Amino acid sequence: MAQRHPDSDTPVAGEVLAPYLREQATEFLRALRQHRESGADEAAEPAHALRAAARRISGALHTFRPLLDADWSDRLRTELAWLSGTLAREHAYAARLDRLIGALHRLSPSAGPRSSVPSQNGGLTVGAAKAGALIERQLTLARTRAHSTALQALGSSRFHAVADGAAVLASEVPLRKDAGGHPLAPFAADVEARLDEAVTALPLVRAGHPYNAEALLHGLAADAAPESQDAPWHQVRLLLRLHRYAQEATGARPDRDVRLISAGQSLDRHRDAAEAATAAASAARTPRIAPATAYALGVLHADQRHEVEASRFTFQAAWRRAPSPDHAVPTP
Amino acid sequence: MAQRHPDSDTPVAGEVLAPYLREQATEFLRALRQHRESGADEAAEPAHALRAAARRISGALHTFRPLLDADWSDRLRTELAWLSGTLAREHAYAARLDRLIGALHRLSPSAGPRSSVPSQNGGLTVGAAKAGALIERQLTLARTRAHSTALQALGSSRFHAVADGAAVLASEVPLRKDAGGHPLAPFAADVEARLDEAVTALPLVRAGHPYNAEALLHGLAADAAPESQDAPWHQVRLLLRLHRYAQEATGARPDRDVRLISAGQSLDRHRDAAEAATAAASAARTPRIAPATAYALGVLHADQRHEVEASRFTFQAAWRRAPSPDHAVPTP
Repeated sequence: MAQRHPDSDTPVAGEVLAPYLREQATEFLRALRQHRESGADEAAEPAHALRAAARRISGALHTFRPLLDADWSDRLRTELAWLSGTLAREHAYAARLDRLIGALHRLSPSAGPRSSVPSQNGGLTVGAAKAGALIERQLTLARTRAHSTALQALGSSRFHAVADGAAVLASEVPLRKDAGGHPLAPFAADVEARLDEAVTALPLVRAGHPYNAEALLHGLAADAAPESQDAPWHQVRLLLRLHRYAQEATGARPDRDVRLISAGQSLDRHRDAAEAATAAASAARTPRIAPATAYALGVLHADQRHEVEASRFTFQAAWRRAPSPDHAVPTP
Repeated sequence: MAQRHPDSDTPVAGEVLAPYLREQATEFLRALRQHRESGADEAAEPAHALRAAARRISGALHTFRPLLDADWSDRLRTELAWLSGTLAREHAYAARLDRLIGALHRLSPSAGPRSSVPSQNGGLTVGAAKAGALIERQLTLARTRAHSTALQALGSSRFHAVADGAAVLASEVPLRKDAGGHPLAPFAADVEARLDEAVTALPLVRAGHPYNAEALLHGLAADAAPESQDAPWHQVRLLLRLHRYAQEATGARPDRDVRLISAGQSLDRHRDAAEAATAAASAARTPRIAPATAYALGVLHADQRHEVEASRFTFQAAWRRAPSPDHAVPTP
């Protein structure tokens, strides 16, 4: 537990964290109101804002847990994770479909389910079109289900409890007694140390060697093979986000840190490509598909695994850059 | 036509090119004798030496054509091209099979036709094993045919005419009258200029950007799509070889030029990967294969196309290096 800090320039819980949490909770409630008032077509933007606020609140509750009412914030964190997970799924399926159909068009520009099958091409172009149609069918179904689940969640009493929690937070942050004067820096530094440790454990040297062919290694061996090499990168992605939110909560401006931003974007792309590759492999296990369809799905899978590898390359290049001077500069 | 050169330090046709051609023709005849005396298992080494000598003779005849009896050397060149093409095919199929089976093992280490199908894995591993068996069947058949064709060629009267041509060259190089004093440098410089021009036309900036995804662009569109983007690279590969042989023929030591060597190796790998990718795509068009087989072939195709892209990256990195000081140093 950190000591009460004598220097008033140092961000402390009562002066910086509490306003931050109130602000995020207010943003959460605003997005929620907007989401309720918007039609199905306009719901994406408020849903995104809702998730962003939920993740920030959750991150701050986690990082600064010793300064807060632990039981209360653990409960709220669990519920926020449930909510943002539920809301994220619909968007994720839609984005995955866009990514895969885009890749199929790149691999086979005249084919794909959004144009007619050109008759002058060989079976493989027909295969690409059929692969696109199969993926569209599967991911659209998944997205529709995720949409229903999200609607149900937003109407549930469980959700209303989360909204009540946010309303409490918007008016009065449940800081522990005497925690108001505690400096925030040690907690944020702890997150940063965990992030640095996780990055150090990544195979960055290999990732920095272009075309290292790691991402497709054992790619045909078993379902779990590529996923297991992805896990530490996904973990770094989450820690990087937690770090960014911890920086925000202490009044710094991680949105000005080009290095952090591009590292984060690389890992987002890593996650998206990895999940798209899994979706292509999974579509290939659909019974009774044509060999040409399966072939196109194999090409698509490998293409997305190379995007996974490319993202690791981009991440290590971003990470190796010197931290920008704007990093950790508090807002005026 | 170059002028007779007054400076005796400059390599001239009679003093440098003629001995080079005699030496290569002697090497050709030596490899031929060795090939005849060796069993089927040991024939690879002399066949390789035969092809290497044939390519060098052919290259020198082409580069220094104005210094030689044009009719005679054009005829010999045509016949040497036929011979080395015929002999190269068997080796190429064997190497392609090795490359593809190696890649399948990398992609699916427990499967492949050289080990039993592990029962605990999913359908895709079975697919990799089946894909390997299919490729092995197709390329072994092609190699066996190429072997028969090569044997027939080596017993043909056409081949004996080539051997006679080499015997003539080994004893007396048919230089044009008064060509003996002509400097070789302008002809070698002409080849180098053609090479530089062809390299300049390559998309080197794009190739220098790792993971540019060019090699798989339109990879599912039509059979000819990836091949057409490969053609200029294949052309540079041939010009680079011609340049190397022209350097050799003028008494330089291109085998000490690390830059040339690694550029050449990159383009060899480019060619091998491109042809392996085509073989995988072609195997996928075999009627009545299982979807899992087709899927594995799709992954394999994309994997080899990424090797194509990786080779371009390596080539541009090698090419950008400053020429080494050993370049164009004549042998003592």
